[in-house]
Amino acid sequence: MCPDHDHAHPIAVNVSDSAEPGPAPAANLIEELVISNHILFDQGVVDAFGHVSVRHNARPDHFLLARNMAPGRVTPADVVEFTLDGEAVNAGGRKVYLERFIHGEIYRKRPDVMAVVHSHSHAIVPLSVVKGVRLQAIFHMAGFVGQGAPVFEIREAGGDATDLLISNNHLGRALADKFVGHDIVLMRGHGSTVVGSSLPQAVYRAVYAEINARYQLQASLLGEVTYLTEGESRTCIQNVEGQVQRPWDLWVEQARAKRSVQHTKS
Amino acid sequence: MCPDHDHAHPIAVNVSDSAEPGPAPAANLIEELVISNHILFDQGVVDAFGHVSVRHNARPDHFLLARNMAPGRVTPADVVEFTLDGEAVNAGGRKVYLERFIHGEIYRKRPDVMAVVHSHSHAIVPLSVVKGVRLQAIFHMAGFVGQGAPVFEIREAGGDATDLLISNNHLGRALADKFVGHDIVLMRGHGSTVVGSSLPQAVYRAVYAEINARYQLQASLLGEVTYLTEGESRTCIQNVEGQVQRPWDLWVEQARAKRSVQHTKS
Amino acid sequence: MCPDHDHAHPIAVNVSDSAEPGPAPAANLIEELVISNHILFDQGVVDAFGHVSVRHNARPDHFLLARNMAPGRVTPADVVEFTLDGEAVNAGGRKVYLERFIHGEIYRKRPDVMAVVHSHSHAIVPLSVVKGVRLQAIFHMAGFVGQGAPVFEIREAGGDATDLLISNNHLGRALADKFVGHDIVLMRGHGSTVVGSSLPQAVYRAVYAEINARYQLQASLLGEVTYLTEGESRTCIQNVEGQVQRPWDLWVEQARAKRSVQHTKS
Amino acid sequence: MCPDHDHAHPIAVNVSDSAEPGPAPAANLIEELVISNHILFDQGVVDAFGHVSVRHNARPDHFLLARNMAPGRVTPADVVEFTLDGEAVNAGGRKVYLERFIHGEIYRKRPDVMAVVHSHSHAIVPLSVVKGVRLQAIFHMAGFVGQGAPVFEIREAGGDATDLLISNNHLGRALADKFVGHDIVLMRGHGSTVVGSSLPQAVYRAVYAEINARYQLQASLLGEVTYLTEGESRTCIQNVEGQVQRPWDLWVEQARAKRSVQHTKS
Repeated sequence: MCPDHDHAHPIAVNVSDSAEPGPAPAANLIEELVISNHILFDQGVVDAFGHVSVRHNARPDHFLLARNMAPGRVTPADVVEFTLDGEAVNAGGRKVYLERFIHGEIYRKRPDVMAVVHSHSHAIVPLSVVKGVRLQAIFHMAGFVGQGAPVFEIREAGGDATDLLISNNHLGRALADKFVGHDIVLMRGHGSTVVGSSLPQAVYRAVYAEINARYQLQASLLGEVTYLTEGESRTCIQNVEGQVQRPWDLWVEQARAKRSVQHTKS
Repeated sequence: MCPDHDHAHPIAVNVSDSAEPGPAPAANLIEELVISNHILFDQGVVDAFGHVSVRHNARPDHFLLARNMAPGRVTPADVVEFTLDGEAVNAGGRKVYLERFIHGEIYRKRPDVMAVVHSHSHAIVPLSVVKGVRLQAIFHMAGFVGQGAPVFEIREAGGDATDLLISNNHLGRALADKFVGHDIVLMRGHGSTVVGSSLPQAVYRAVYAEINARYQLQASLLGEVTYLTEGESRTCIQNVEGQVQRPWDLWVEQARAKRSVQHTKS
Repeated sequence: MCPDHDHAHPIAVNVSDSAEPGPAPAANLIEELVISNHILFDQGVVDAFGHVSVRHNARPDHFLLARNMAPGRVTPADVVEFTLDGEAVNAGGRKVYLERFIHGEIYRKRPDVMAVVHSHSHAIVPLSVVKGVRLQAIFHMAGFVGQGAPVFEIREAGGDATDLLISNNHLGRALADKFVGHDIVLMRGHGSTVVGSSLPQAVYRAVYAEINARYQLQASLLGEVTYLTEGESRTCIQNVEGQVQRPWDLWVEQARAKRSVQHTKS
Repeated sequence: MCPDHDHAHPIAVNVSDSAEPGPAPAANLIEELVISNHILFDQGVVDAFGHVSVRHNARPDHFLLARNMAPGRVTPADVVEFTLDGEAVNAGGRKVYLERFIHGEIYRKRPDVMAVVHSHSHAIVPLSVVKGVRLQAIFHMAGFVGQGAPVFEIREAGGDATDLLISNNHLGRALADKFVGHDIVLMRGHGSTVVGSSLPQAVYRAVYAEINARYQLQASLLGEVTYLTEGESRTCIQNVEGQVQRPWDLWVEQARAKRSVQHTKS
């Protein structure tokens, strides 16, 4: 158990703006992050909880993440800039997500990662708690899941009385270590984190990881399952994920239409 | 079997206003109770049946509960005040819920409880009827479920030919006894009751108890499940439930937007 | 196998108006039948298929049923009157449901029945095809299901090459025979038929039979299930079903609001 | 393994208009194809992926298919004409579906087929990956599924490192071969393809194949299942599918109402 792990903490926290401001992120990156929040909510990947971040376009050692709030309600004004250590640049007194360490430590460990989604989606959680079971690529849309996603057991790094949350850099690093050779990691009794080389790809993967989990739950009750081979997984990533723009465009359109209707109404 | 248990009764009942009126409850408490009814309906925890109450802010020996009606349609004018014995202050000839004894007897037994939700949510009922199975905390959002929720078997207090309803103080007390050391109790072949120190907390728990049940159903088909430890449950309650405002704000916003649209339309 | 069973027939049929007209049915009965169609669609009990009928208020040997069409679209002008033999009074050249024999033969067999719902709802069909499994009352809302609903195996009356439809009086009578002592009968590989003493009760039962089936599917995968006793079933019917007005009022309100919005929009 | 199979390809591709134009297809056929795309999306058969085609009314060696895009967004201007070899007549520089070979090769193999739906619907995929399990007709609406749908294992024709997609004529022919004596073929780890003698029939079959799969998943967990006999399947196809106009009309109405509301709003 980690001696500096403080078990008593709120999951929304106040931080001082201890990091130095620098060049502003691109406005369209902020827009893309906002709509990613909305899409993840609309697709049922997040509810009032869960979060998505993107690496700062001009400062690879910084990333952007909403302040502590429900993803479906995020606006551009709610986006906060953080260092990889999780220090805020411009929180301005607003509460931030306790679990920002998930994002910072993965960006540090994996320079190729540009976007991170953390969620508790509905078919993923059950698969995270069954001994001997690993999420595995079952269909062509989810080749990125690979031959068995690691399960992060927080008890190994944090002891057996945590709130299961990644509440400091120590736990963030332990989680990030699981991303060597993997783009999705399940978190026991908690959810999953998935990474991508862009927001559309990370969002796509979060949506289809959930669907893969649902199929795996159903299929494995019926008998022995034929999963994708390593070669199939690799070819699927290469070819199918070149196509993330197609669902992305649809989801953006749906997210905008839905919010435009709500604005007209209320 | 309880000799005073009358098996023939309607589940909506007429009561005389036998209790003395006193100070009026706070208007915002009534508003919070109304929107709690709407949220529980919108989130699928209740359908036309189920109910939520809150302890009277000025008279801890009284509580507030809608008159007999579908929760999704409750308005402030539908809220009735009751004593812990289930006697009405201001029913004014309107029918009330037969099962108000659930609420009164729990408030009597547990002075710390400020709000009570009773429902038949969809994943809870199946878990209430399987021999040897107990609802158990499976993920960090549901630490309050603990190491195994009690199942109330009405046959022990009411015999084997009841309608399973908590239709009098005798049955209410038998149910309330199960809440010593537990904040959620399943009721065999019926549903569950969950308590909290505020309406947002009780609503939160009703929503996430249902989700926990669904995950438990799925996971336990796949193999041996790793549930939260007692320490994890405790830490989760302490930290995660400090955050109930986040889903509450989202649900309030959704409930209002939905009803505002319907008003505009009809 | 029945020699007069003609395997080649459309499921929407033309009939001549061979029956004599008499007193018109009450207008509010027709209204209630129309909204029952809408509710069953809204609640997911029927899709484009399935039907609901009511016994004629002035002629107990006649009943009312929509012409051949999707239930969610029925209007008062679509209601047709039939004799118990399935002969039309006022089809006026419009196609009618092939399976009207379900309704006529049950009204003949069970003078106490005033309304009949036939559907293929989603959890009922799987339970209709598993050897040795019978739908059984699992919670207090579904006492009417009783200690094991009969399964109608059409092969016994119609041979092993039918379309599973109740396409003539012979098959209708064979099905109706199963309703002695039962208010719901499953039909293997097809769906179910449920009866009540009013449209609200029959609709209520169709909705909660489906929910009971879903719970039974889930619970029976987990272990040995405690079903309602015969006494509990009886008491539940007596007390809980006195309350069908509550969901009925909610469903009527929802059905009207939904259709009013659609009218405004289109 | 097929030597000419190129594993590295995008799933949206550019093609030159190498085929000769001829008589234009009927405008109402294009309208029917557009609304088929919308219905399949609305009914949850396709998401951003999947496609539906129809044989050209005036040139049986040509077929019509949307350009590469999400089905729910297709308009008449997005429909492209192809030869059975998958060569475009009028792509005009727009990207097309890589998997158009599914459609062309089935139209070549089965002159009676007029419409083809390819999808990854949610209950079909799990059934496609379990060893020894075959989709089988379980209820009267899905007689066309028959006594066990073939599963196309792409490894037999394409090796064990494909992206599971039907990306050339060689794979298209291997898939089409499975349609001898069958109207639906599952594709391991991918989805299914279903054919019909008209767009309404093919759409109907895609919707009810998914429902049949869901029922089969549930029922087969409970015990031994009674499937339709060969005679029942045949009679169901003959009688029930004469009725595809009923759901079709409902779905068309819903698809139009939904899109009309969205137009008014946005």
